Amino acid sequence: MRQDSHGPIGVFDSGIGGLTVLKALMARLPHERTLYLGDTARVPYGTKSGEVVTRYSLKNAEFLLERGIKLLVVACNTASAAALPALSATLPVPVLGVIGTPGTIRSGAYQRALEAGQPNVSVKARACPLFVPLAEEGWTTGDVPLLVAREYLAGFARDGVDTLVLGCTHYPLLKGVIAEVVGPHVSLVDSAEATAEAVAELLGARGLLAPESSTTPEHAYFVTDVPERFVEVGARFLGRPIPSAEQVDLRF
Amino acid sequence: MRQDSHGPIGVFDSGIGGLTVLKALMARLPHERTLYLGDTARVPYGTKSGEVVTRYSLKNAEFLLERGIKLLVVACNTASAAALPALSATLPVPVLGVIGTPGTIRSGAYQRALEAGQPNVSVKARACPLFVPLAEEGWTTGDVPLLVAREYLAGFARDGVDTLVLGCTHYPLLKGVIAEVVGPHVSLVDSAEATAEAVAELLGARGLLAPESSTTPEHAYFVTDVPERFVEVGARFLGRPIPSAEQVDLRF
Repeated sequence: MRQDSHGPIGVFDSGIGGLTVLKALMARLPHERTLYLGDTARVPYGTKSGEVVTRYSLKNAEFLLERGIKLLVVACNTASAAALPALSATLPVPVLGVIGTPGTIRSGAYQRALEAGQPNVSVKARACPLFVPLAEEGWTTGDVPLLVAREYLAGFARDGVDTLVLGCTHYPLLKGVIAEVVGPHVSLVDSAEATAEAVAELLGARGLLAPESSTTPEHAYFVTDVPERFVEVGARFLGRPIPSAEQVDLRF
Repeated sequence: MRQDSHGPIGVFDSGIGGLTVLKALMARLPHERTLYLGDTARVPYGTKSGEVVTRYSLKNAEFLLERGIKLLVVACNTASAAALPALSATLPVPVLGVIGTPGTIRSGAYQRALEAGQPNVSVKARACPLFVPLAEEGWTTGDVPLLVAREYLAGFARDGVDTLVLGCTHYPLLKGVIAEVVGPHVSLVDSAEATAEAVAELLGARGLLAPESSTTPEHAYFVTDVPERFVEVGARFLGRPIPSAEQVDLRF
């Protein structure tokens, strides 16, 4: 497949969470066209096996490839942890993932990547599944998210953790309460922003950056279930309205 | 298809929640064999469209029918609201549902059923999506579930609601905090128990009750994704250990 700087960036996620990654991409690379696929018929991936998640991920990637993407962003932490090797081995375009859902934590992917060859780095991981419905419900401030964050993260504060990776695309919406619980001495790493930076570097290095243009680039959205909830809840994640999303039938 | 009193009762759900219905069935009908299918590869159904949920439900029912069930219990509120007419029209065995996830609430099924022909009945419904991960995490007592329940249900108490239907199979695990929030004057209706009673009546009326026996009947469990989490979390829902669950491949 020919890679063309005019092609769009493809982004997929199990649902709406990856829109925080798309938001960071749009901010960092405002001239790029994007195609976003939310596999809302099969969401969530976090509680599913690596084998199942890999099967779904390959199908999602195939859908986007058929539409001429020049690069694929796996904007789902679980799919990144489970399927990145299979996707990179199979696809004719560069593939980037994000850096936990239970599936990500269980896979041990962060610990392996961060501890590899770094004897002074120690990594503790905690799955925070309640953060996902809190973000989707829009309960991002107030007592409930604060108590939930305390329950999940108080141990980190006690353990003297100095850096906290927000290892799920939903978590940036809860950055405020997370910061309040862990305190000002803990750096929060937002994997959406880190991913956007990595995409910019890779496209630049390969001469694949879209040419600057005075017109706004197109952004298209696809979902595998009815689009209403995606459009409504997704706008909060993307930080801008989603004009429409097209339902596509990916059966597997 | 021949209906035989010796056949098992088939029960399906999107995942583990239906195990609260199975628990009530086992208590009410201790001589019945059961087959339980948790569609864990596609859980949750609550945020998916009626069309998608109906497609999944028909496939689940087909799997159980092939194993000779004499009656089908749809132990998922979303699937009951979306797919009961299609299932009843298609299947050669009796079908019973349970009585909301967002999908159930959105469908208006409760309101229609309860208000039909009863001018003095007024129904208010509220989706409580955070109850599901709370139940699965085992956070069923303490400040977090209490605050969440208050946030969702305080309006009911103010409105003078006298009866509260626990409209999702996960909610019986949170009965304690729910009762605390709504107070002693509100009757809680546990749809798992109501469903078990309806199954007993139907089997009795059709002469399909299993003959009493001195041996313990068999209970088999099937899932569409890896069984580890189902077996572990499910035991809390079922109130007894799940010795094993068989992974089956239902693609659609």
